[in-house]
Amino acid sequence: MFGPDEGAPNEDLVVLGIDPGVSRCGYGAVRRDGGRAEAIAYGVISTPPSDPLPQRLASLHDELEALVAEVRPSAMAVERVLFQNNVRTAMSVGQASGLALTVAAKANVSVTHYSPNEVKLAVVGYGAADKHQVQTMVARLLNLDAVPSPPDAADALALAVCHLWGAPLRLQTEAPVGTTATGGSSNESRFEAAVAAALAKEGTPG
Amino acid sequence: MFGPDEGAPNEDLVVLGIDPGVSRCGYGAVRRDGGRAEAIAYGVISTPPSDPLPQRLASLHDELEALVAEVRPSAMAVERVLFQNNVRTAMSVGQASGLALTVAAKANVSVTHYSPNEVKLAVVGYGAADKHQVQTMVARLLNLDAVPSPPDAADALALAVCHLWGAPLRLQTEAPVGTTATGGSSNESRFEAAVAAALAKEGTPG
Repeated sequence: MFGPDEGAPNEDLVVLGIDPGVSRCGYGAVRRDGGRAEAIAYGVISTPPSDPLPQRLASLHDELEALVAEVRPSAMAVERVLFQNNVRTAMSVGQASGLALTVAAKANVSVTHYSPNEVKLAVVGYGAADKHQVQTMVARLLNLDAVPSPPDAADALALAVCHLWGAPLRLQTEAPVGTTATGGSSNESRFEAAVAAALAKEGTPG
Repeated sequence: MFGPDEGAPNEDLVVLGIDPGVSRCGYGAVRRDGGRAEAIAYGVISTPPSDPLPQRLASLHDELEALVAEVRPSAMAVERVLFQNNVRTAMSVGQASGLALTVAAKANVSVTHYSPNEVKLAVVGYGAADKHQVQTMVARLLNLDAVPSPPDAADALALAVCHLWGAPLRLQTEAPVGTTATGGSSNESRFEAAVAAALAKEGTPG
């Protein structure tokens, strides 16, 4: 009933990206205000491997809870692990992601999962991009002076960027069902133009 | 400094077994009082697959928390997944087990992991036992009229039994380091005698 002309409340749109892990859980919160975006918090929650696992998980849970309370995201973007050779890693990522999803549900924050390839596609423009390209692009899109560090934090920011830019673009791209391939190309071009513009800002490195 | 003669407080020893899963999480609480043991609670926490995953995990978290508050276990025994062909299953089991461990840590309850083979070895006497043998033995050891149902609950009770009987036995078996194989065999015989006694009680089924 409410169309886009209804004058939606001009609330800040804050997305919290989470790259789940028990030893190192990356997080990155991005606020979008119209066409601009800024990183408002990013870092890594780490738990010492020397501690018993239950204590580490409880500590991770509490830190995630405090983070959500502080950042008050309107959405969370959590990395989806589609394939993992190592079952131990899958279990561990599952334990951390389970806590992140639980904290999100309790705070009434919606969660979307993105695979690494979806993040690369949304942030750099192609799914085969390497980690460095993603991190460099995240720094440019968020006007950061340097590539965010550590890498887990950069990955989490990339997830948030993916949700902010990728999701609307994907919805637009998916919208013209039944139209010709040309129908979707304007969105593609628009996205490519945005990426090109960001890349054009590339001056001397560092 | 405190030896076994110090007169340890005669507290109830309650072990809560957890067979983690998001769709179905089995639990079984066993109280040991000297040589007797009784199941004080068992069942399954299930979450509807139609609900969003974050809500399901938050619900599982809250139910586990309520269960621990009610049962007040002195220890938790959680199934360890050593190998899982399906990474999706490993992720899902990881999410559920992560919540169980978090709840345990927050309630100051120690956690021990047991693999399915360790449970079979402790409960039936050999690691290649089938599920039915484990469930039948659990029913006998806990003096239940029937095999506990559903199977997830029986598996959780088996974990608790494994912790109550298996762990002390294993500690005894591990103790005589450097002794000959004969040194450990008395423990083995004692365990086998206990199993034989339980089996000897086998009358007409049902």
